[in-house]
Amino acid sequence: MPLNIHFSAADHVWDDYNVVLPQALEKAGVHAHLSRDHAPATVDYIVFAPNPALTDFAPFTRCKAVLSLWAGVETIVTNDTLTQPLARLVDPGLTQGMVEWVVGHTLRHHLGMDTHIFGQDGVWRDHVPPLAGDRPVTVLGLGALGAACGQALASLSFPVTGWSRGAKTIEGITCLHGSAGLEQALTNAEILILLLPLTPLTRNLINAERLAHLAKGAFVINPGRGPLIDDTALLAALETGQIAHATLDVFRQEPLPAGNPYWTHPKVTVTPHIASETRPASAAKVIAQNIARVEAGQPLKNLVNRSRGY
Amino acid sequence: MPLNIHFSAADHVWDDYNVVLPQALEKAGVHAHLSRDHAPATVDYIVFAPNPALTDFAPFTRCKAVLSLWAGVETIVTNDTLTQPLARLVDPGLTQGMVEWVVGHTLRHHLGMDTHIFGQDGVWRDHVPPLAGDRPVTVLGLGALGAACGQALASLSFPVTGWSRGAKTIEGITCLHGSAGLEQALTNAEILILLLPLTPLTRNLINAERLAHLAKGAFVINPGRGPLIDDTALLAALETGQIAHATLDVFRQEPLPAGNPYWTHPKVTVTPHIASETRPASAAKVIAQNIARVEAGQPLKNLVNRSRGY
Repeated sequence: MPLNIHFSAADHVWDDYNVVLPQALEKAGVHAHLSRDHAPATVDYIVFAPNPALTDFAPFTRCKAVLSLWAGVETIVTNDTLTQPLARLVDPGLTQGMVEWVVGHTLRHHLGMDTHIFGQDGVWRDHVPPLAGDRPVTVLGLGALGAACGQALASLSFPVTGWSRGAKTIEGITCLHGSAGLEQALTNAEILILLLPLTPLTRNLINAERLAHLAKGAFVINPGRGPLIDDTALLAALETGQIAHATLDVFRQEPLPAGNPYWTHPKVTVTPHIASETRPASAAKVIAQNIARVEAGQPLKNLVNRSRGY
Repeated sequence: MPLNIHFSAADHVWDDYNVVLPQALEKAGVHAHLSRDHAPATVDYIVFAPNPALTDFAPFTRCKAVLSLWAGVETIVTNDTLTQPLARLVDPGLTQGMVEWVVGHTLRHHLGMDTHIFGQDGVWRDHVPPLAGDRPVTVLGLGALGAACGQALASLSFPVTGWSRGAKTIEGITCLHGSAGLEQALTNAEILILLLPLTPLTRNLINAERLAHLAKGAFVINPGRGPLIDDTALLAALETGQIAHATLDVFRQEPLPAGNPYWTHPKVTVTPHIASETRPASAAKVIAQNIARVEAGQPLKNLVNRSRGY
């Protein structure tokens, strides 16, 4: 008998998961029938992200576990009808995705790729960029994401300076900290990558004064949080040429409103909060392996502690 | 007394070298006067690339060495007036530059960057690409450049298959060889990178049949040699969608003529043979250090053996 796995999330993700989740389940040795239309009383597992169609978990009387598609479960744990074991998504793909996005966009600007992407007009523009070793990169924020991105860039020979509030030591990265360290980290950096958490201390950290410390014509890459940047100061620095280009993945308001000046600015690239996003293939693998664990009699991984809330 | 260093190369490189070479000489502790107008009899060293203004080296009677800006000296060694010691350029920057170009363009296609580079129209397109681990990359050619590029991509978690004529073992790369290995290496590859030398056996290697082995919608990246690809077959495969995009750095004729269809093809990016190019800053450092060696009484490095020709 196949297990009945009920899928309940936003409509637009179904097409992806309907392909990758059955594949991942099969690979994990789980014989299952994935559907959005199982009768509640017949369901063995629920794969879930918040959506209006499922707010009452009480009818799922035989369900052994609810597997969240989201890492954050703060909106789910408050649902009193959810008494089944709940697993949050812990996906190593999130750090990997961030590293790929940061290294890719850093190399785009470092190599001056746009000259060629936009210059398909028969003109042979054979100017070569400096090597990575001559292109100082600074990463603000040395948590799991900042450290991984900094080390990936260092392995490509970029001289990487990292900054965090407290002192850290990370192989391959020149680590600075505190207020004095921040000015030093920014000074003459040609590529600035923002991976700080958003706190009262980091809000608007990248203001006119700090942008002025960077090398003339520097690139700003923000996959962290929108409010880290004073938007007015960044637009002004793009105007003067102090900043050559900004690639922004996060914004004060998301989706970024169609009328926002970032969308049409020739020196800005907007990406839609995708730098570190759950990949269906990656999430499906994690979820399928967790179901396989329970079927093999092992405890559910990443079980949410309801009183703690995560 | 400063040394008189005579610079003789194509006019368009002078602006770069006139900045970076004095800096590199100073850093190497060499007190020198770099000029394009030294009287031949007063010259201590010549920094040289083939150009019409200097074909007779006889008047440079006091010159201790000629330092080539090019790695290949096949056009210089045949000049009978050149009796001074000649050093070819051996620049570790060439491999580094190739790795940066290959990793950058691979990530551009892997991440689907163009969706955002060209899509600055207010539409929030939050589709995420697969992770690198789900994107098979194949590198044809496992010489110094192919091996270095393959390993850099493997360190970013791409599953990398490499192919060479003879058997090789390279950490992090699944190495295949021979004719049977070639079909296996191409089959289902989503990104194909060409770093083979051009020989009678590799000319037009990438023809219609071999392009058909790749995954549907694969990307072709050629920083190797233009004639490795059957251009007609590639254009046809771009037409059918078998190949989603080709990024080409090398061509049968360079500079690529303005009327060539590659220039205006929406699925082709032309870069002007810059993937692995001498960087003035990098070359200047190598040359300055070689002059410093001679001044310190050590032998000239990378001395050309005239009878062998390199």
